Formats: sequence, structure tokens, C-alpha cells
Amino acid sequence: MIYSQQYTYDTHEELLEKVQAAMSEKRFRHVLRVEKAAIDLAERYGESVEKASIAALTHDYAKERSDADFKKVIIEFGYDLDLLNWGNAIWHGLLGAKLVEKELKITDPDILRAIELHTTGAAEMSLLAKILYVADYIEAGRDFPGVEVAREIAEENLDDAVAFETQHTLEHLIAKRSPVYPKTLATYNRWVAKK
Amino acid sequence: MIYSQQYTYDTHEELLEKVQAAMSEKRFRHVLRVEKAAIDLAERYGESVEKASIAALTHDYAKERSDADFKKVIIEFGYDLDLLNWGNAIWHGLLGAKLVEKELKITDPDILRAIELHTTGAAEMSLLAKILYVADYIEAGRDFPGVEVAREIAEENLDDAVAFETQHTLEHLIAKRSPVYPKTLATYNRWVAKK
Repeated sequence: MIYSQQYTYDTHEELLEKVQAAMSEKRFRHVLRVEKAAIDLAERYGESVEKASIAALTHDYAKERSDADFKKVIIEFGYDLDLLNWGNAIWHGLLGAKLVEKELKITDPDILRAIELHTTGAAEMSLLAKILYVADYIEAGRDFPGVEVAREIAEENLDDAVAFETQHTLEHLIAKRSPVYPKTLATYNRWVAKK
Repeated sequence: MIYSQQYTYDTHEELLEKVQAAMSEKRFRHVLRVEKAAIDLAERYGESVEKASIAALTHDYAKERSDADFKKVIIEFGYDLDLLNWGNAIWHGLLGAKLVEKELKITDPDILRAIELHTTGAAEMSLLAKILYVADYIEAGRDFPGVEVAREIAEENLDDAVAFETQHTLEHLIAKRSPVYPKTLATYNRWVAKK
């Protein structure tokens, strides 16, 4: 893909290299599959494929940072200190966007917001944010029960795919007795709950 | 039961009559069963049986008020206006406590707080609040799948009963795609989620 330089001065190849350098080979292959899924969804739903590519390539850029690194970001950039009570699952998106901005010099607010929200979703999500959220869930390497249904829904209606993913993610977290970040509940109340 | 007049100037009989007058016969029978369960738990876990009786008898005092009545309470008493987006399930406890205070002249903060929290729970719950929350779930008329397990747990460990009820209530709401009040998630993160 040829990037327009509207969102990054890196070429696609240069961005790939920077992302690859930040993570394990296994995670990098996941990122490439998310990029593929996000580009497919962007084409289907009328989003910029370039933005989809950049958001997907960078969405897990910070996933392998240490907890200490994330705690430093929380303090340094003045995030809500309640974030200290959470962990990598929440930090790598919300704070990862800040590291993408700082280190990769990507400043487009829609791309950064999509990275922020890719794990939790939100009550308000742009088209790009929905695409990244769903692409991360349905990329070709995923094989949990229900992923085929999720892929079918994602071809029909993106909002329904957001709802399916949110409902099943929440069910999964609760069955495991894992902590649930409040924003995930806000996503559920907006996209899943019947009024 | 002989009330001490520490928490209400009504006798047990007078309070029963006021509560009965506020609701259907069916709901009143539920209230009596919750009182029985709450007294049992109070004896088991060392709470005042009088406070348990009063909290249980009044916990659904406002359940049959109209939505218009509750909306008036939200405005009149200056509650967070986001409450207007919710419904009877949330209002009858949180705002019901205010009506119990105003109309039944019960002012004990622990009793009022237990009424407020009886549907959603909270991160911070007193012994009395836990007792009412659990009693409402396990009273002898309940017959949903899992209620027998809940009753057994409630005999062993009250905090575990709070956790069981919260996890299963949340699973039930999500399976039905019902809205989930944020305080219910706070209860889950405090009492159910593993750190």
C-alpha cells in the first residue's frame, strides 16, 4: 500500500518495520492479520483504507511494554490515577495511543482514538474505531467459539458486530471473574442493551 | 417482634400495615419472605434482627410507584439527572429509600443505605446491606436455577453469597441484553472479580 503522507511520514514498509521491532514475531503476525481484516472492513463500509491500515498496524504497538512503563505514562501525562488499578489489557490501548503519538509521530485524532478504544470500545465510536475493534476480534487467526458468527455479522452490519463482540466479551470476562473496565460496560449499555 | 423504637416509632404490626397498604398482596408476601430470610441471616452473622426486619419490610416500599413519581423525586431531591435514563428496577431502591425516610420517618442511615443498595449492591456494603441484598435473592419464594446453591453459600459465607448473586445477576442481565447500571459493575469488580 502507498501511504499518502497525510497521517504518517513513514512509508507502509517503514511503519511495518517499526511495529515489528516493538513486538514478538507472533504478535506481529496477529497485527498483520488485523490489518487485513481492517482493510476489508474499511472497503466494505467506506472508511479510508490507509487510516484502517495505520490504526491496525499500530493498535498493539505498546502491548509488550512493562507495567512500570505504563505507570510512568499515567503519571507523566496526567491520566486519571484510577488507571493504576488496572493492567496491560486496559493500558496497551488507552496509553498505547499516547506512545504511538509520541514515538511514531502519528497525530490523527481518529486513528489515535481508535487505538485507545480498541479493547474496551466506548459509547461513542467512529467508523474507524468500530472497524479496528471488530477487526481485532475476527482476524483470521482467531478461533474461539462464536468467531465464525462474528465474521458473518461483520459482513452484514458493523454495529451488530460491535454489539456481538461486546456482549460475548463481557460474558467471557464475567464467567472468568475477570475485572471489567467501566468503559466496557458503557459500550455494552450503548451498543448491546435494548432500550 | 417487639421493636425498640430506636429506628421507628411504629410497632412491627404498624409497619407491616403501612407496607402492605403500599403494594399488591403478591409483593407483600415476597416482602414477608425477605424479612424471614433477613432475620435468619442477621442471627447467623451477628446483625441486629430489628434493623434486618425494618430494612426488609421497607425495601420494596416504593416499588409500585409510577415512573412519574420517581422522576419527580429525582428532580425534587436533586439526584444526578442521569438517573432519568434508568427505570423502576434502579429507582425503587435508590429513590425508594428517600420515600421510606420521608413517608415512614425511618432515618437510620444504615437501614436507608441498605434499601438504596438492595438491587445493585455497591463496592462498599455494610453487614446490613449485604444481608438485605442476599435475603432478597434467596427468599423462600425464589425458584430460579441456582437459587439452592445461593442459599447454601449464604449459610456458609455472606461475602461469597454477595459474589455469587452479583455474578449470576450480571450474567442474566447480559444474556437478556438488559441495561446494566454502573453501580452493579462496581459491585462485581469489588466482590466477584479476582485481582
